[in-house]
Amino acid sequence: MDDRARETLAKLTTAEKASLTSGADFWTTTAIAHAGIPSVMLTDGPHGLRKQTGSADHLGLGSSVPATCFPPAVALACAFDPELAERVGIALGVESAIENVAVILGPGVNIKRSPLCGRNFEYLSEDPLVSGVLGAGLVRGIQSRGVGASLKHFAANNQETDRMRVSADIDERPLHEIYLRAFQRVVTDAQPWTVMCSYSRINGVYASEDHRLLTKLLRDDWGFNGLVVSDWGAVDDRVAALTAGLDLEMPGGSGHSAERIVAAVADGRLPESVLDSAAARVIALARKAEARIHPSHKLDVDAHHALAREAAARSIVLLKNDGGLLPLDPGRRIAVIGEFARTPRFQGGGSSHINPTRVDSALDALAAVAGDHLRFAPGFGFAAADDAASLRDEAVALAAASDVAAVFLGLTEAEESEGFDRTHINLPAAQLELLDAVLVANPNVVVVLSNGSVVALPFADRVPAIVEAWLLGQAGGSATADVLLGEANPSGKLAETIPVRLEDTPAFGNFPGSFGHVRYGEGVFVGYRWYDLRETAVAFPFGHGLSYAVFDYGVAQVHLADDGDLLVTVPVTNTSDRPGREVVQVYLGLDDSAVERPPRELKGFRSVEIPAGETVEVTVTVRSADLAYWDTRVGRFVVEPGTYRVDVGASSRDIRSTSVVDIAGDDVRVALTEHSSLAEAAAHPVVGPAVRASLPKGIFGASDGGASDGEGFADDMVLQMIGSIPLGRLPGFPSAGVTADDIRKLIAAANSAEPPD
Amino acid sequence: MDDRARETLAKLTTAEKASLTSGADFWTTTAIAHAGIPSVMLTDGPHGLRKQTGSADHLGLGSSVPATCFPPAVALACAFDPELAERVGIALGVESAIENVAVILGPGVNIKRSPLCGRNFEYLSEDPLVSGVLGAGLVRGIQSRGVGASLKHFAANNQETDRMRVSADIDERPLHEIYLRAFQRVVTDAQPWTVMCSYSRINGVYASEDHRLLTKLLRDDWGFNGLVVSDWGAVDDRVAALTAGLDLEMPGGSGHSAERIVAAVADGRLPESVLDSAAARVIALARKAEARIHPSHKLDVDAHHALAREAAARSIVLLKNDGGLLPLDPGRRIAVIGEFARTPRFQGGGSSHINPTRVDSALDALAAVAGDHLRFAPGFGFAAADDAASLRDEAVALAAASDVAAVFLGLTEAEESEGFDRTHINLPAAQLELLDAVLVANPNVVVVLSNGSVVALPFADRVPAIVEAWLLGQAGGSATADVLLGEANPSGKLAETIPVRLEDTPAFGNFPGSFGHVRYGEGVFVGYRWYDLRETAVAFPFGHGLSYAVFDYGVAQVHLADDGDLLVTVPVTNTSDRPGREVVQVYLGLDDSAVERPPRELKGFRSVEIPAGETVEVTVTVRSADLAYWDTRVGRFVVEPGTYRVDVGASSRDIRSTSVVDIAGDDVRVALTEHSSLAEAAAHPVVGPAVRASLPKGIFGASDGGASDGEGFADDMVLQMIGSIPLGRLPGFPSAGVTADDIRKLIAAANSAEPPD
Repeated sequence: MDDRARETLAKLTTAEKASLTSGADFWTTTAIAHAGIPSVMLTDGPHGLRKQTGSADHLGLGSSVPATCFPPAVALACAFDPELAERVGIALGVESAIENVAVILGPGVNIKRSPLCGRNFEYLSEDPLVSGVLGAGLVRGIQSRGVGASLKHFAANNQETDRMRVSADIDERPLHEIYLRAFQRVVTDAQPWTVMCSYSRINGVYASEDHRLLTKLLRDDWGFNGLVVSDWGAVDDRVAALTAGLDLEMPGGSGHSAERIVAAVADGRLPESVLDSAAARVIALARKAEARIHPSHKLDVDAHHALAREAAARSIVLLKNDGGLLPLDPGRRIAVIGEFARTPRFQGGGSSHINPTRVDSALDALAAVAGDHLRFAPGFGFAAADDAASLRDEAVALAAASDVAAVFLGLTEAEESEGFDRTHINLPAAQLELLDAVLVANPNVVVVLSNGSVVALPFADRVPAIVEAWLLGQAGGSATADVLLGEANPSGKLAETIPVRLEDTPAFGNFPGSFGHVRYGEGVFVGYRWYDLRETAVAFPFGHGLSYAVFDYGVAQVHLADDGDLLVTVPVTNTSDRPGREVVQVYLGLDDSAVERPPRELKGFRSVEIPAGETVEVTVTVRSADLAYWDTRVGRFVVEPGTYRVDVGASSRDIRSTSVVDIAGDDVRVALTEHSSLAEAAAHPVVGPAVRASLPKGIFGASDGGASDGEGFADDMVLQMIGSIPLGRLPGFPSAGVTADDIRKLIAAANSAEPPD
Repeated sequence: MDDRARETLAKLTTAEKASLTSGADFWTTTAIAHAGIPSVMLTDGPHGLRKQTGSADHLGLGSSVPATCFPPAVALACAFDPELAERVGIALGVESAIENVAVILGPGVNIKRSPLCGRNFEYLSEDPLVSGVLGAGLVRGIQSRGVGASLKHFAANNQETDRMRVSADIDERPLHEIYLRAFQRVVTDAQPWTVMCSYSRINGVYASEDHRLLTKLLRDDWGFNGLVVSDWGAVDDRVAALTAGLDLEMPGGSGHSAERIVAAVADGRLPESVLDSAAARVIALARKAEARIHPSHKLDVDAHHALAREAAARSIVLLKNDGGLLPLDPGRRIAVIGEFARTPRFQGGGSSHINPTRVDSALDALAAVAGDHLRFAPGFGFAAADDAASLRDEAVALAAASDVAAVFLGLTEAEESEGFDRTHINLPAAQLELLDAVLVANPNVVVVLSNGSVVALPFADRVPAIVEAWLLGQAGGSATADVLLGEANPSGKLAETIPVRLEDTPAFGNFPGSFGHVRYGEGVFVGYRWYDLRETAVAFPFGHGLSYAVFDYGVAQVHLADDGDLLVTVPVTNTSDRPGREVVQVYLGLDDSAVERPPRELKGFRSVEIPAGETVEVTVTVRSADLAYWDTRVGRFVVEPGTYRVDVGASSRDIRSTSVVDIAGDDVRVALTEHSSLAEAAAHPVVGPAVRASLPKGIFGASDGGASDGEGFADDMVLQMIGSIPLGRLPGFPSAGVTADDIRKLIAAANSAEPPD
């Protein structure tokens, strides 16, 4: 706390300080005029500004000022490009600054644990590195314009069902390695102004009351120096939350929380110093926001729309393109089928719902180029009253009379949104039936998908080309046309696996839980980590995405830098006659690990533009810290010594070059105790030799080593049976000839000496 | 405690009572002559007596008296017949009584969580009902002869890796529904004299120190009135264990435990009443054992061998029999291939290793019938020095010169045993290569398997006949010949699923854990519950097993009895010309459940003999209590109301008749609190109508219900977003117009009144 904050606090009553730690209303903080503390506004994000107009309704879901709707996270993540994310972040910051918004509520870096999560479209990836790197890019961009980001939802908010109460029951390894890691990355790399705690509980404790989460990890370990704000309505017990490190409760206006805080300070349950810290952080945030240069210009709608279009094109993933059906030749007869081509679905429902400055449709954008060669049939309607049969027949007839059919399929907003989870991952049956009918009429079909989270693709083997166009924001329609026509060369890669079936997904059977608890039973095996561990077939793997160019990979070189980072360099050649962009992915594996690990984990990636016919030496940095796993024996991240496999590839299942690298790792010494096993004692660097030497004539020598049927027990079987006995139990086997005093001496010797070199 | 026990205790010093609660040595309890307390012996089981001869070595793995080796649990379970289990139990009781053994340590009813568990051969099933029903049969049989059983390993000892320390981290539902349920069944149905606590920890607490387990559940809830004994060496803290309800620590002889108990009584940490209870139970056990009529006759080796042969034949599972290759025609040229035919593997390694009275080989038994038509080639050897190529060539040549080849494959004792877990489920590569070579020479192959836990069967599609012969005990060879030749008609059914791959198994990635913890992440979805939930292909499903007869099922009738039990009656017709035995299986499912459930769970079964050409009306009773699931809201078993599907079939995936039955279920009332959600309040039987009526004009009415892009939010989407808000948080949304006092009144009204009828 700086001197100015201290001076300000000194002017405030306890009640005034308490009032600062809740909002003044739905969207703004409390002002205290006599102390020069302004009120500032926080608004929804994360892929556009949602600043409400007029008086806020109680849910905060009323109409909002026009803003650019950039590609939601589900799409933007597929660019695998933190620089692009930063540029989008800058635009978000500019729009927020123009509207005098202090903090825009995003990005969301929760892990996509299940494709059913209704809010997956707001989240980046099933992988913590992708989530963390891109989240940091967005935060850097937003904050470069003097606007605060709010990293959310901290933490483990991976479903909508019962989201305000459900306890995410997670073991330490997945909690740290999967669910907290992206947050850690963003905090350490980009220092967001605010972090938003989630609604959920973690192992029974509300995130809003979790001192380990909000203070020990976030501030003490990761060095966060901003403000922690609650998700709207996430505070269950204001005093407990304040104690845990929750600075600002939102929304506010009821006055109840301030009353409770004042009472708790009065009766000694809450140290005033805790309140002071929280109030000081609110003051600091408000002053920081006020201090920025306030732009006087208006929003440059065209420029931001153009950026939205560029980002959308970069987000599209070309899943399949057999026979080079794409890009479309605008000189041929093109059937555009599917209502989504005319009426795009470009964003998700809920608090992130933007009032866009304009909306492009793919149909308009395609027609502008293809002209009379293009014809359209909706194929299906969004309303129940639509005559499905006649719409289908019309579309099939059009397909039959065309050279190629681009069929736009997808999910409507009623099928996925914030607030509820899906119960299946199927496209509507009417759309699948339409597609089947079109395929009979004309096999030259390009499926274009609009969806906020993955859908099953039962037609994947029967359709020559598939474009995953997600929810792409307001310029998604023109961006889709750019890709379909080859104006843009697709370079997106899947930031989440597309499974064959919902039943194959990791959390199936453990989602969404019941009676207030959901068990994260799959542990660290989330997303591709699960499919790869179990060698499960997937529709399209994590990291997959095609280009109209072709990239050849050379042999990767791995260099271990002095600081422990790995520099992985691989030559990548664009053997085609078009410029293109490739995302080089570096996965690491440690097959002979002390803990259960996936076969490979993404530890570095890089998006690079490669001119036609040229070779680029791509260097990907793998941070030493990212090699670590959470060691439950010592409660911290540890790099395990060993020979790591380095897989370099174009997707998680398209590995082009494999190397190995020896990592010295961290020296983790665990004290020998009476609960250490005999096998652990025998392997101990100090006393191990003596224990092993004593075994033949001492402990193991007493065994007659034979059962009476003649086959007997080999010595190693006896070893296998006895090695797991804890040292402290050996004296309980009198014939072992070991006393409790022997064990005490052994343990003392082990823990008092350094091992020999 | 009865008067006699009280009188006896009054004669003892604290030190004497303490001495009673540990063994005198490896196998016997402590005697106190002046009080007339005898010493009695406990010995290993569970499928035969392992009474050691001479002085015990410290591991208790020395040679033992000859005894009949009955089929280990892995095999016997496949008969699905509690009456057969009881007959085997009687024989075990007779042999124990002859040898003056007070307690035989078995049966083991731990659930087969993973096929990798090294001790699976000692356990019955992946299903708790099968484990419980058959375990109860064994206990009834043993104890009918005045010998005590020891139900083990209580509880959740589902792996060998780190078995003396590892914490089985299990949620409440799987703990109660899967891992404790078989124990509960055996205790309530058969009241074993003793229960043996496991080595492992459960959710961090040693089983030996788990008061909820050893006292609350076992004694208070289930009514156990016997003695709790430790697994050998399972006690970590003797005083804590005694407090939890662990009466007898084994082995003994060191005196340390008695000293600690005396000290704890002296300093008040341990109430003497706790010690008295434990000592009284030891005294009661010893006197009960002494009181039985001691048989003077010797073991009838022939009669018990004949029972072992009958039980073994009943245990064999005919997995596949395409083209009626089996039974073998002894008049044709039969090649018997595989060293297991000559040198049978019939039991597992470790504490259950029996010194058999005799051993039959399949080769001898087949040759006795087939005579000169039969020829043998070992095909492979068990020793590394064997010349694999020449053995294989010899076998292939024999197969080529024969009409049919019976190829005996399996796992050696080095590959599976107590004390360690497997790391894969493959048969040895040399054996698989031999089989492939034989198949080329002669496609008429019968594979006969010898294995203590399931193995992958990559040849399942290429071999016309497969016989799963497990480890069958000492008469397994002759029993196998009986089945192969049709002297016995196979009727065994799989008590555990045979998966296609290890990677498909439920615990894969969560087994065997690390650093002292293993997460049971698959929850209740163990065995077929997992494969059915995920619709995963399996090699052979749970409950599967063929016969040489053919059984047709009619339509099942479900009758709901007054006591809540279901009586499921189905006519089954043996349409063949041989008598046969069928195991009719009744599975229940509740698709529309409040909790995640498998599609179907075995709730009843019955093994019936059906003469050729006849129809038998088979009635299977499903107990009302077995319909219950563990409701975590109230911490007890609850029958959920609903319409249950009743699947009657010949396996879990061969359902022959499906009905439905309406179950009224239990009325579980959960109090409304400030943590109840708005949706729960709206559904509440008392206040729900008022809450629902208030919604349109009150809580939900304030929403403008529209976003500015024209699509807007439908009312039901707002409902979906607001329904999960806890009542206590509503006042924090000031525009909702609800005060804290409103909520208090609502809750009071809900909890004070009975719902209207």
